[in-house]
Amino acid sequence: MIDAVSFENDTLGYLDQRFLPLKEEYIKTKSHLEAIEAIKTLAVRGAPLIGIVAGYTVILGLNSYQGTKDEFPLYFEKLIQDVEASRPTAVNLFFATACMKAVYDTSFTSDSLEELFAKMLVAARKIHTDEIANCDAMARHGVELIRHDLAETLKTRKLNVLTHCNTGTLATGGSGTALGVIKQAWQEGLIEKVITAESRPLLQGLRLTAWELETENIPFLSISDSSSAFLMQKGMIDFGIVGADRIAANGDTANKIGTFAHAVSAAAHNIPYYIAAPVSTIDITIEDGSHIPIEERSADELRTIFGTQVATPSTPVLNYAFDVTPNQYIRGIVTDKKAVVGNYAEDLKKLIT
Amino acid sequence: MIDAVSFENDTLGYLDQRFLPLKEEYIKTKSHLEAIEAIKTLAVRGAPLIGIVAGYTVILGLNSYQGTKDEFPLYFEKLIQDVEASRPTAVNLFFATACMKAVYDTSFTSDSLEELFAKMLVAARKIHTDEIANCDAMARHGVELIRHDLAETLKTRKLNVLTHCNTGTLATGGSGTALGVIKQAWQEGLIEKVITAESRPLLQGLRLTAWELETENIPFLSISDSSSAFLMQKGMIDFGIVGADRIAANGDTANKIGTFAHAVSAAAHNIPYYIAAPVSTIDITIEDGSHIPIEERSADELRTIFGTQVATPSTPVLNYAFDVTPNQYIRGIVTDKKAVVGNYAEDLKKLIT
Repeated sequence: MIDAVSFENDTLGYLDQRFLPLKEEYIKTKSHLEAIEAIKTLAVRGAPLIGIVAGYTVILGLNSYQGTKDEFPLYFEKLIQDVEASRPTAVNLFFATACMKAVYDTSFTSDSLEELFAKMLVAARKIHTDEIANCDAMARHGVELIRHDLAETLKTRKLNVLTHCNTGTLATGGSGTALGVIKQAWQEGLIEKVITAESRPLLQGLRLTAWELETENIPFLSISDSSSAFLMQKGMIDFGIVGADRIAANGDTANKIGTFAHAVSAAAHNIPYYIAAPVSTIDITIEDGSHIPIEERSADELRTIFGTQVATPSTPVLNYAFDVTPNQYIRGIVTDKKAVVGNYAEDLKKLIT
Repeated sequence: MIDAVSFENDTLGYLDQRFLPLKEEYIKTKSHLEAIEAIKTLAVRGAPLIGIVAGYTVILGLNSYQGTKDEFPLYFEKLIQDVEASRPTAVNLFFATACMKAVYDTSFTSDSLEELFAKMLVAARKIHTDEIANCDAMARHGVELIRHDLAETLKTRKLNVLTHCNTGTLATGGSGTALGVIKQAWQEGLIEKVITAESRPLLQGLRLTAWELETENIPFLSISDSSSAFLMQKGMIDFGIVGADRIAANGDTANKIGTFAHAVSAAAHNIPYYIAAPVSTIDITIEDGSHIPIEERSADELRTIFGTQVATPSTPVLNYAFDVTPNQYIRGIVTDKKAVVGNYAEDLKKLIT
């Protein structure tokens, strides 16, 4: 089992992901400053996982408080600010601090500090257990959909599944979104092997997903991103499933660059292609994918690999971190509430309200 | 100008491509052993370029011969064997040695060694000038086709073109196949900029094509391979053109892995996608793409990048070096004889006979 994050005996445990798969380093700390540093340095990454660690980081901060109740509000404010500053673009981090602030707002005046801290620990654990439960729910709904859509193939053999980037325990703290579905399908005997696209430029597929699958003894092959189309042509991929960074109201999905390329190839070969993401990923205020802002990241992500320079510093690079897959390429969107197929514009809205 | 290969004053000149674009090292040598080593170590690469260098390597071998005419046959046989052993999978290399052997067979008995060597030099130069002429012819036919197919767009603006791998001077000794067409189109004012896909695993696009374009002052952007589909969706690519490793009788084309992925995306976005390759690339004995053998290369090409390990040595990898693009994805095949559009099965045959 991969222990991406834990909180036992007032101690935060996490796996330093920076040097995976070449080095597995499990860290234990009681220091909220060290935990903040772990978020800052990307030792922990993946939006949901950052949220979980942020909640526990607040708890570590509370545990080291030695002042009176009167002095606590100032300390708490500073603590929240420090946690939020560790990764200012991570939405889940702010969700976590909002949870902690909500407990503070409701209970600070009526409760003793001890009671308040206990309630906050409950809130921090809830962020963690909710993520685990979300992943489990997605896994159930996803496997049900796959069993339905690929019933004919499953009568004669197991399935080969394509995935992209990392959407597993390392990203979520639970079993994962897309990778959680795959793991569940594997456990239920539906999967022959996983094809993991390396996911340039940062190689999360080759480094992290491969490591998770190896650790969990699930058979897999790593491929270059541009191989997926050829493997589909050769009949080596039965379906694809990936995560989502943001889903628009009509089902158009922004996700790690390469997601759309696989989707186009899947459509050309009549291979079902799924998105797995919690309902919180759906942004109902965004009408369609054309309105999702797409981050352009540093040229050096392409020009250097793991610190090794491969192109000249003057090489001009266009490095979109994400792409948008229009809804017509998506056979189904698997959420923690249910799997939505077909009429995304109507059905995604229902999940939110 | 890029001087990928030259032969002046009995001296072979070549650009050591191994450390491009980080280091440009032009080598001059009169030693055929050093030239053989250059082919062996991939200091020179690209099928046509290897052919050119192989021809000149034989000449260097002749120049260092000090024996009598009687002893020459044995020496020549050994020389040819050594050259052929330098890269036993390179078809163009064997084409080059066959040319030299043909001269030997026709002229050895009737000519003096001096006369024979002079004729062989003519033959070696012809391999080189033929490659240059082939590239020039492809460039003309390709630009003509592009002017025709993209006439509407060209009325209002210049074109953005996608290419893959390296098909330029570094590969051919001439201006290139696909990249030769692009350069000609640029010189004629048709091109806004080139989008060069990095071409994992060996990054020929990011390293070599980028370097050629930078050297020739042609505007370009390097992208990750899996970005092309998204750029097409955003209207940032007007057409694609790539080379070929082998073309079947029906036009199905084997080329560097990733070629087919771009083709599928181009088809989905109604973007013309061309192959540029000399007639010698067409293998009329192969009915269709399903019969082209596809090389699987070492897993370490993915697991390490430029000597830097990025995945564990135990990570299982599937590393197809090439893929096959079925003919229906190809708008036209540009050869040195003419550009073929549409009925490949019939028209490619005519080029050969």
